[in-house]
Amino acid sequence: MILCDFSSIIDDYDVFFFDSYGVLRNHQGLISGIDKTIKYLHDRNKVIRILTNDASRNAAGLLATYQRLGIRSLTEDQVISSGMMAKSYLETKVKSGLVVYLGTEQSASYIVQAGLEPFPISRVTPDMYDEITALVFLDDEGYDWNVDLNKTYNLLRYRNIPTIVANTDKVYPKSDKELNLATGAVARILETISGRTFIKFGKPDTQMFIYALESVPNYHTYSKSKMLMIGDTLHTDVMGGNKFGIATALVLSGNTSEKEADLMIRSSSIIPDFICRSAGL
Amino acid sequence: MILCDFSSIIDDYDVFFFDSYGVLRNHQGLISGIDKTIKYLHDRNKVIRILTNDASRNAAGLLATYQRLGIRSLTEDQVISSGMMAKSYLETKVKSGLVVYLGTEQSASYIVQAGLEPFPISRVTPDMYDEITALVFLDDEGYDWNVDLNKTYNLLRYRNIPTIVANTDKVYPKSDKELNLATGAVARILETISGRTFIKFGKPDTQMFIYALESVPNYHTYSKSKMLMIGDTLHTDVMGGNKFGIATALVLSGNTSEKEADLMIRSSSIIPDFICRSAGL
Amino acid sequence: MILCDFSSIIDDYDVFFFDSYGVLRNHQGLISGIDKTIKYLHDRNKVIRILTNDASRNAAGLLATYQRLGIRSLTEDQVISSGMMAKSYLETKVKSGLVVYLGTEQSASYIVQAGLEPFPISRVTPDMYDEITALVFLDDEGYDWNVDLNKTYNLLRYRNIPTIVANTDKVYPKSDKELNLATGAVARILETISGRTFIKFGKPDTQMFIYALESVPNYHTYSKSKMLMIGDTLHTDVMGGNKFGIATALVLSGNTSEKEADLMIRSSSIIPDFICRSAGL
Amino acid sequence: MILCDFSSIIDDYDVFFFDSYGVLRNHQGLISGIDKTIKYLHDRNKVIRILTNDASRNAAGLLATYQRLGIRSLTEDQVISSGMMAKSYLETKVKSGLVVYLGTEQSASYIVQAGLEPFPISRVTPDMYDEITALVFLDDEGYDWNVDLNKTYNLLRYRNIPTIVANTDKVYPKSDKELNLATGAVARILETISGRTFIKFGKPDTQMFIYALESVPNYHTYSKSKMLMIGDTLHTDVMGGNKFGIATALVLSGNTSEKEADLMIRSSSIIPDFICRSAGL
Repeated sequence: MILCDFSSIIDDYDVFFFDSYGVLRNHQGLISGIDKTIKYLHDRNKVIRILTNDASRNAAGLLATYQRLGIRSLTEDQVISSGMMAKSYLETKVKSGLVVYLGTEQSASYIVQAGLEPFPISRVTPDMYDEITALVFLDDEGYDWNVDLNKTYNLLRYRNIPTIVANTDKVYPKSDKELNLATGAVARILETISGRTFIKFGKPDTQMFIYALESVPNYHTYSKSKMLMIGDTLHTDVMGGNKFGIATALVLSGNTSEKEADLMIRSSSIIPDFICRSAGL
Repeated sequence: MILCDFSSIIDDYDVFFFDSYGVLRNHQGLISGIDKTIKYLHDRNKVIRILTNDASRNAAGLLATYQRLGIRSLTEDQVISSGMMAKSYLETKVKSGLVVYLGTEQSASYIVQAGLEPFPISRVTPDMYDEITALVFLDDEGYDWNVDLNKTYNLLRYRNIPTIVANTDKVYPKSDKELNLATGAVARILETISGRTFIKFGKPDTQMFIYALESVPNYHTYSKSKMLMIGDTLHTDVMGGNKFGIATALVLSGNTSEKEADLMIRSSSIIPDFICRSAGL
Repeated sequence: MILCDFSSIIDDYDVFFFDSYGVLRNHQGLISGIDKTIKYLHDRNKVIRILTNDASRNAAGLLATYQRLGIRSLTEDQVISSGMMAKSYLETKVKSGLVVYLGTEQSASYIVQAGLEPFPISRVTPDMYDEITALVFLDDEGYDWNVDLNKTYNLLRYRNIPTIVANTDKVYPKSDKELNLATGAVARILETISGRTFIKFGKPDTQMFIYALESVPNYHTYSKSKMLMIGDTLHTDVMGGNKFGIATALVLSGNTSEKEADLMIRSSSIIPDFICRSAGL
Repeated sequence: MILCDFSSIIDDYDVFFFDSYGVLRNHQGLISGIDKTIKYLHDRNKVIRILTNDASRNAAGLLATYQRLGIRSLTEDQVISSGMMAKSYLETKVKSGLVVYLGTEQSASYIVQAGLEPFPISRVTPDMYDEITALVFLDDEGYDWNVDLNKTYNLLRYRNIPTIVANTDKVYPKSDKELNLATGAVARILETISGRTFIKFGKPDTQMFIYALESVPNYHTYSKSKMLMIGDTLHTDVMGGNKFGIATALVLSGNTSEKEADLMIRSSSIIPDFICRSAGL
């Protein structure tokens, strides 16, 4: 495994897709040197997009986090979340009715933005079943797993409705030493037990990459050979970037540690073009 | 699908293995006519064993339920639970240390019976990790899924210890209309996310059948052609009985409804020898 | 389940995405009335794209089939195959070296089109391992499964290379009564046993839909509410169209029979907007 | 990872369960020193049973292999194969009709021994479907995968019959450097695509251990604490022995190399009591 310095590859690309958690920031704040990286790219008019599997907050909320951490140059249009993909689905395919969700009230903003009525799983009773037109997994917080996962299962047994997973991540770092189960893991248990096929949004699906790219003015003028995805997770960031046909850099500042990177690459055959300790300059 | 009356097959067998929930009783009490069935078999000196995927209570506790419901002729040696298989494993393979469990205090009796020290997941802190020698999924109740499943996941990340699933059932009927996720479903999510291989006890594994049979005095004198497994679930009861090489009867008084039985048999190819509305006479 | 006539919905849409096999044609030739449908759409300047999970032939080859069957108005740019997605990946991500493939010589044209050197699995020997830079599953025909799947497995054990599945379909109709295992099923066994993560192209991935849409002149002028995906398979065609956010019609002229459609929809929760006997007029 | 010498633990046990391939022999012949081990145990009247996931030959055929290799003291009753478990199932649960098999003619002896009529998949035609009463996967050799796996799939679609997998191993060593897909892998693809639940025999199922133990005269006089399973595969041999409640030794003379043993144990949590280079003295 050859580690390379992010500074040695940064000048070779024009479009930068960054994962968020584990790449730009972690539970302790900004990854060291990331502010310099962002400034470096802005100064050179490079294209920046943040692609995050996150449906816990909308783009404005995600942006606010970065601004609070000191990166003030980012703008809302540079932030693309898997929640936005789910929102877009709800908008075009679910026209009315109650949309039941698992998540915090904040995460439900994606349903509101789609012009629909969000309804928390905790308040669902069987007499409402007929009014429910979709089910959305938004966040792992905001509900009682013991009670509400059973409720969700029974709703799925009685109603044949589309079920949307707005973040397919299985785990996320809670702290230095702890990982927590993420929405994708919670949804997976219900999908397995119910036998249904859920509609999933987020990397490694290339949909987010295409959406992000199309948000760039004159995007047709950029070649895929000048685009780079930077992420800390092989199965989402690197797989997604590879499949989209662009260069990929695995950074070791998040989910994947230096100790295990080589083994994980070899055992999965998800192969990044570069491996860097971090994306900080 | 041909339905047959349980009374028409009862005289063809000498050894009867009954599943418990959905066969002998349900959330409303005894299945109608079951007391007559048990009496009929006792009067004719037939062998009865109850084989239940249950680790929420020990055999004495399970027996007490039947006695409370009015079947007083059953004795403790006739009740075989998947929890007893797990206990036996703990006894022979885990010699000392803290055995962390997910379940109620009552379910922990299997750990105590194995001569080990049970410790609830809710009280685990990282500084104890080194003392923990095994992890056991006993029941879906008795802990906070939001907090304690994450705790379990982190324990698995740090400690390479045997993990035992004492009941592999995925769902159980909570009421007439509701199913709840059972221990097996809860364990499965952790097994999938952690990548570990858990040690699972319960039907359809034939281990319980062999254990049950060996508990019968002079069991060598009985032929498999005179044994019948009666259950309400294809994947556990019927699959287990079939694999053990004995006749199987699916009853429609529990998990499998008359409406869906035929389809479930055809789509799984788990084929019972008989289908009866119930095992009641 | 309400069946509707395709003629009753055809005027509501401007862009038509058709699956190929089971929708436009089957093993006996054209689906009855399809030539009229295509003519009807062409006469009204509607947009037509054929989206097929097929890597056995290139677009020209696929087109030739339609022309032979009598639909002469279709042009090559209207045919989008999963093989084209794979080709695009090979082009941008695999720069040189031997690209080993499982498929017929004809299917290897996708590798040639990507400017790379195709090499059949049957001719691979261990001394070449080092020169191999990618592995591609193109077709279920053209190689000896007994010998070459074992060869593929051993190649995967020794070389950490990207593996591309150019058609994720699991089965295809061989005749009226027979289904055959397709490339996706063959690839899946190797993926499971090797533990690797393959890069898969084809519906239900929305990538093909986006690619197809972007091939339409002035595609930005069309609204998703005026687009319709027509397919015979829930898990690929309908799921893909739904996820892309457009209307979907399940036709019963291929993989999904009228008898089983309702059950399959209810058990999967993949819900089409319309169900039609066929897309023929 | 602490390696221990097999000679240092051999005197602590009275009953020895050996896996066959990779433990007693490999593609080059006997594992070095195994003849001494067998003699040492025989001289001390220790109990020896060979537990092999193999349905390619019957016990007599397996024994002949050992005798040819120079271990003449073994007898037929010491050899227990997964094929024997399958035979026992066929005997008690499938009474008549054609039993279709995938395997060599030699492997079909298990069907003959069960008193049934074996019929090779290669000769099946749709007009016979009604006479077929069971399907058995016996070996990965003896049939044309391209043709006969498709035939098997179509048989499963038309007939609701029990399907038996007589060897659940996924791979086996073909030579020093090559692994081949085994019966279990071949069966798995059909099980996945057909959606059926097959009946599987072999380690890690404890059924074989119980069967083997019960074949020992006065087996009740032996304690589980004096029994040892010796195998080269974590998921079958070690998992099975652990679950059966006896001590387990992983040997590095077969499927698991010294280089990868530690990682495989940690990533699976299948933990042997001992790790030895080989079981040879």
